[in-house]
Amino acid sequence: MTTVCDILDYIETIAPQSLKMDWDNVGLLCGSGKQEVNKILVALDPFEEVCREAAEIGADLIVTHHPLIFQGVQAVTDETSVGRTLLFLAQNGISAINAHTNLDCAAGGVNDTLAAVLGLENISPIAPGLLRQGYMKSQPLSEFLSAVKTALGCQGLRYVDSGKNVCKVAVGGGACASEMHLAAEAGCDTFVTADVKYNQFYEAKQLGINLIDAGHFHTENPVCKVLAGKLQVQFPHIPVCLSQIHCDCTKFFF
Amino acid sequence: MTTVCDILDYIETIAPQSLKMDWDNVGLLCGSGKQEVNKILVALDPFEEVCREAAEIGADLIVTHHPLIFQGVQAVTDETSVGRTLLFLAQNGISAINAHTNLDCAAGGVNDTLAAVLGLENISPIAPGLLRQGYMKSQPLSEFLSAVKTALGCQGLRYVDSGKNVCKVAVGGGACASEMHLAAEAGCDTFVTADVKYNQFYEAKQLGINLIDAGHFHTENPVCKVLAGKLQVQFPHIPVCLSQIHCDCTKFFF
Amino acid sequence: MTTVCDILDYIETIAPQSLKMDWDNVGLLCGSGKQEVNKILVALDPFEEVCREAAEIGADLIVTHHPLIFQGVQAVTDETSVGRTLLFLAQNGISAINAHTNLDCAAGGVNDTLAAVLGLENISPIAPGLLRQGYMKSQPLSEFLSAVKTALGCQGLRYVDSGKNVCKVAVGGGACASEMHLAAEAGCDTFVTADVKYNQFYEAKQLGINLIDAGHFHTENPVCKVLAGKLQVQFPHIPVCLSQIHCDCTKFFF
Amino acid sequence: MTTVCDILDYIETIAPQSLKMDWDNVGLLCGSGKQEVNKILVALDPFEEVCREAAEIGADLIVTHHPLIFQGVQAVTDETSVGRTLLFLAQNGISAINAHTNLDCAAGGVNDTLAAVLGLENISPIAPGLLRQGYMKSQPLSEFLSAVKTALGCQGLRYVDSGKNVCKVAVGGGACASEMHLAAEAGCDTFVTADVKYNQFYEAKQLGINLIDAGHFHTENPVCKVLAGKLQVQFPHIPVCLSQIHCDCTKFFF
Amino acid sequence: MTTVCDILDYIETIAPQSLKMDWDNVGLLCGSGKQEVNKILVALDPFEEVCREAAEIGADLIVTHHPLIFQGVQAVTDETSVGRTLLFLAQNGISAINAHTNLDCAAGGVNDTLAAVLGLENISPIAPGLLRQGYMKSQPLSEFLSAVKTALGCQGLRYVDSGKNVCKVAVGGGACASEMHLAAEAGCDTFVTADVKYNQFYEAKQLGINLIDAGHFHTENPVCKVLAGKLQVQFPHIPVCLSQIHCDCTKFFF
Amino acid sequence: MTTVCDILDYIETIAPQSLKMDWDNVGLLCGSGKQEVNKILVALDPFEEVCREAAEIGADLIVTHHPLIFQGVQAVTDETSVGRTLLFLAQNGISAINAHTNLDCAAGGVNDTLAAVLGLENISPIAPGLLRQGYMKSQPLSEFLSAVKTALGCQGLRYVDSGKNVCKVAVGGGACASEMHLAAEAGCDTFVTADVKYNQFYEAKQLGINLIDAGHFHTENPVCKVLAGKLQVQFPHIPVCLSQIHCDCTKFFF
Repeated sequence: MTTVCDILDYIETIAPQSLKMDWDNVGLLCGSGKQEVNKILVALDPFEEVCREAAEIGADLIVTHHPLIFQGVQAVTDETSVGRTLLFLAQNGISAINAHTNLDCAAGGVNDTLAAVLGLENISPIAPGLLRQGYMKSQPLSEFLSAVKTALGCQGLRYVDSGKNVCKVAVGGGACASEMHLAAEAGCDTFVTADVKYNQFYEAKQLGINLIDAGHFHTENPVCKVLAGKLQVQFPHIPVCLSQIHCDCTKFFF
Repeated sequence: MTTVCDILDYIETIAPQSLKMDWDNVGLLCGSGKQEVNKILVALDPFEEVCREAAEIGADLIVTHHPLIFQGVQAVTDETSVGRTLLFLAQNGISAINAHTNLDCAAGGVNDTLAAVLGLENISPIAPGLLRQGYMKSQPLSEFLSAVKTALGCQGLRYVDSGKNVCKVAVGGGACASEMHLAAEAGCDTFVTADVKYNQFYEAKQLGINLIDAGHFHTENPVCKVLAGKLQVQFPHIPVCLSQIHCDCTKFFF
Repeated sequence: MTTVCDILDYIETIAPQSLKMDWDNVGLLCGSGKQEVNKILVALDPFEEVCREAAEIGADLIVTHHPLIFQGVQAVTDETSVGRTLLFLAQNGISAINAHTNLDCAAGGVNDTLAAVLGLENISPIAPGLLRQGYMKSQPLSEFLSAVKTALGCQGLRYVDSGKNVCKVAVGGGACASEMHLAAEAGCDTFVTADVKYNQFYEAKQLGINLIDAGHFHTENPVCKVLAGKLQVQFPHIPVCLSQIHCDCTKFFF
Repeated sequence: MTTVCDILDYIETIAPQSLKMDWDNVGLLCGSGKQEVNKILVALDPFEEVCREAAEIGADLIVTHHPLIFQGVQAVTDETSVGRTLLFLAQNGISAINAHTNLDCAAGGVNDTLAAVLGLENISPIAPGLLRQGYMKSQPLSEFLSAVKTALGCQGLRYVDSGKNVCKVAVGGGACASEMHLAAEAGCDTFVTADVKYNQFYEAKQLGINLIDAGHFHTENPVCKVLAGKLQVQFPHIPVCLSQIHCDCTKFFF
Repeated sequence: MTTVCDILDYIETIAPQSLKMDWDNVGLLCGSGKQEVNKILVALDPFEEVCREAAEIGADLIVTHHPLIFQGVQAVTDETSVGRTLLFLAQNGISAINAHTNLDCAAGGVNDTLAAVLGLENISPIAPGLLRQGYMKSQPLSEFLSAVKTALGCQGLRYVDSGKNVCKVAVGGGACASEMHLAAEAGCDTFVTADVKYNQFYEAKQLGINLIDAGHFHTENPVCKVLAGKLQVQFPHIPVCLSQIHCDCTKFFF
Repeated sequence: MTTVCDILDYIETIAPQSLKMDWDNVGLLCGSGKQEVNKILVALDPFEEVCREAAEIGADLIVTHHPLIFQGVQAVTDETSVGRTLLFLAQNGISAINAHTNLDCAAGGVNDTLAAVLGLENISPIAPGLLRQGYMKSQPLSEFLSAVKTALGCQGLRYVDSGKNVCKVAVGGGACASEMHLAAEAGCDTFVTADVKYNQFYEAKQLGINLIDAGHFHTENPVCKVLAGKLQVQFPHIPVCLSQIHCDCTKFFF
């Protein structure tokens, strides 16, 4: 019998909790470590519809990147999205595990996967370990934008063009624009991240680095397939499914 | 159909949330306001065994004095008592409501009930509103101790004798010894409360006030019967039950 | 002779500093109130290129929405963008004034202007005064998106579709998504703002409100024309110019 | 001539200040290190009546466990117990020394003494050093309760019975119930401490550990005799007296 | 019989505690309100030698401007000046009262007295009430310096000359230089205070105000005579003495 | 070509920034590291008149002890002294460097220079490194006061005489009286510093140490000559000038 604890123990080997940020909340956030696991659903977020999908396919465990509970909850009621999700999971006997910033930083995690999907070569961490850098054949920014859009399946990109060809690229899945100076100091000409704010686009121009916002979902979601694959290899007798309904709710209008 | 919200609305009329302390957590802490209520269990604490009792008698709502969640929870798992309780309630479709410091302070609440059960007369609040004071026929402390033990059904009492007869008595159910100076300033010769610490017994002797620790459970539990009674009158079609299994786990050895 | 102080006094009448947020920095941030003003440049941001434009057209005052200094500066050197800008302004005898959150909230300010440009009717503030709400002829979201893009001159929009027609619209220029619940509580079906993050798009879907990110620049820049117009009417003898070079550095790639 | 400093120096060897908690206040709290010592009174607390006893027997130094000043005093007047005590000691030329949490943790201190008095065997510290653990011949809880009451001279005990026989016992004199989890994690079946609150008794039941509140005074006072004995051996020419009047003001009523 | 409380009650009428700064410590700081008062010593500071003087002349109460205890004391021992003073007072049966910032601000207090001694006319408070302002016949600064030195009995003065004649003068006894801007905003040409720091002298020059440091002792000590006089009138049967030995320990060398 | 950065690099060798206090602000506070340096003005403070002197003599760099900006500035306008100075420096193409607490602590810095000017022998730091101590031929305090006044060119001194001859002297230029206990613990009989407050003079008397306030300017200014000399030797082709107009604005009146 495989238990939730067995899954947790394995995830600790690929994304150790010692790598997580101080403010983060990771691990088993709902259910029981002693529960038997017969089917796993992997998704980026423990959104309500993802939990319903888990119930529909008969999964007894969801493994996500983002945490179900971010700040401590004072009540578990149907008045909040977190409360509804917790009630649904409990009522359907589904446990919930997540690996967040520990998976961002881990070797083979969110940012290594993003770098690989973008086709970077000689990938290495930028100190202190969150971002990754790698190399491309030198190309105009427009060519790289097209490649990013295709590789990540984005509907659109937002970016600032700092006038440089693309050759040495930094990546940080999700909202990593506040780490931009580390990418610039590492000598990267281009930085791919998400949730970029107005002043950060301008700051990139000041720093002389191309900054591309490829979307929070699209820069992080590739790790789900990797994570599901690793779980399937490790636990071959347990079906590990990728969420079929979880997609980016954000759309572009041109 | 009566819903959890209807019960909440009624409780607001007898223990308004405006009376609660800033640090407190009261109201609907688990479940759904829209849930239909067919049976209510009233108890001092939302302990795990009380929740099991609720399930066994078919209650869909528990109403307690103490809150289920005190400090925000970071996870809802079976590793903690709060987590196990939340999972059990969700799985059994039971909502949980509480009225804590708002019920302590409310007219007809915890402290008015305690004063009445002890037989005090001319009961009135001691500013700013938590404690109550009232009068007894003047008697030796030993006589009053015997009366308290009988009235509250305590196995034993702890006390300090400051050498005064008992006539004007202050009461504060639960751990109110830090409010002792208010009782002394109000001219009370005796103060009944619970969870008294060593230095507080000594402080009472310094202040010249008899201090009696009658137990947290025994000083607060009387309000449950009162609360259940009010709910039954207000919602005559819904069975309102008092917990039969919740008792004080603390024992005395002599 | 008109001085910088005269301009400041007038701006106080249209965007009183009593309306600003506690953390904001507004008013005269560089130069001298006693300086004579002969030409004014109005722009959204006091970026370096805007300051160079001011020097080139012979302006001795720039009036912007965003502040030149946000957090106190420890040094004024060419190692930072703020330092370079301050040195350039001082060397070219240009003073700098801004009206930030006071102009967001002011009647006829950023948000009233945005509402008007979008063609809303019966415009009114949403308490406590930052956002505005107004009405459109009921229309599908796709029709409204097209209208927003045209009205604001955006290259693209990001949005979440919550399945409602557009009729009652809230607006908040710049990064106002954290105020989304106020728009929802006011009964708006649609909210136009900027700098929206991943979880905020999802939160909008949960709240059942269409959320449109029309860009920080495009939602705030319309006020510049309004502000320049008011200044020109008040000070007819002083040429008031709109920045010709300041545009949104953020581009879309589809 | 033996001075107060000589006594302090000796106490440092048996209860080094490096062992005290950060928030604690220990050492010479009243009087003068240069004062000659001709008689010492040892007591648990520097209460007013203990200080009067010191004066009556001609002691020029009191050595206590609890500190005379806990939080800094703003005034030394007869309006407070601390003020009255300080004035009395000064007027009677009595210095006051204490060893509090340093003596709790020290080898041979409060908790080692408590463990020994209870007849534990193979006594050792529980990390990080405050509590002690030891072994008894396995016995029913009722038998152990009787032994504790006799050994410590308590009038009564309060306890929770978690259904286990007593064999491996943890002890922490005074209010140590917040350290209960350390006792449970160390595998103890029983924990003896004092000043236990309602929720802590319940928590013990949840943890499955017998919890006994044997009283703050009775769990700590045994160290006074030990401390007096050590002082007498070290300073054979100075009479070292144990307080004859200091007892527990808390009584039980059954 | 006159008690310390009677003296306190009278001081409350001339320097109400409601006028004191939040951080200040005033009133009865040592001894007993119930003590009989037969002789009073008034001095600026409760220094050790002042307390010895009180004992020598048989005073049972000292009344000072500066407080005996400023920050809460953790111990009352002869290792600190405050500890030695408290021990001495207690041993000699002397109580200690002070009126500090309440006396600075009070009508007829420290600053009104200083203004009067300097010969100012039409004396009035500068908002919010600490400093005083008044007028002199217009005179060169050198003439005013000579007058200040004579009036206060200073050995020397430190000052900055801002090039203005002296006509409207602000005063603040003790270390009030941080309030200098209030004096300047009130239109004063000259400010007399004490404990002035280097940057404050320079700031005065920038503000264009003559700043005179006449010494902490010399600017505050005049109030002692006034206070002693008021006490003597109010309590004619009790000898009220001014300290004969307390003087300024700071000397000038030229 | 020598740049401002070259000067900064050299100053780092004689007063490393690792020596500065946490709260301090040192280094390049105005202008550009890339600017060519053709003339340097050295002064204690970057006061407005010093900056004008720099402009008049054609200096393009000022090097001072005190920082131009102490707490972050929210605006650079002519309403404040710091703002006026920054505007003037920018308009005149003058950069500003300072070495403050790093120069206080550095070998050969402020305090070593002060010790040397006073003629101390066997000069060494007092832990943790700010103050210096050294020896004089034993002499009465009056003789030492005369020597200090002459050596530093003071108009007057303020001091407290603790009744000891002068032999082992501690020095701390500027406001170092709060470090007095370190001087006393090091066994010094005399301490020379500045900006001494009333209670500090009294504290010196209590500690039994002669305390001399020789003025902030006079105790720190000697380092300017030393610093200018070192710069001149290191950069022989660049004229390094000492400010001719910067003097102490504080005067004495006797």
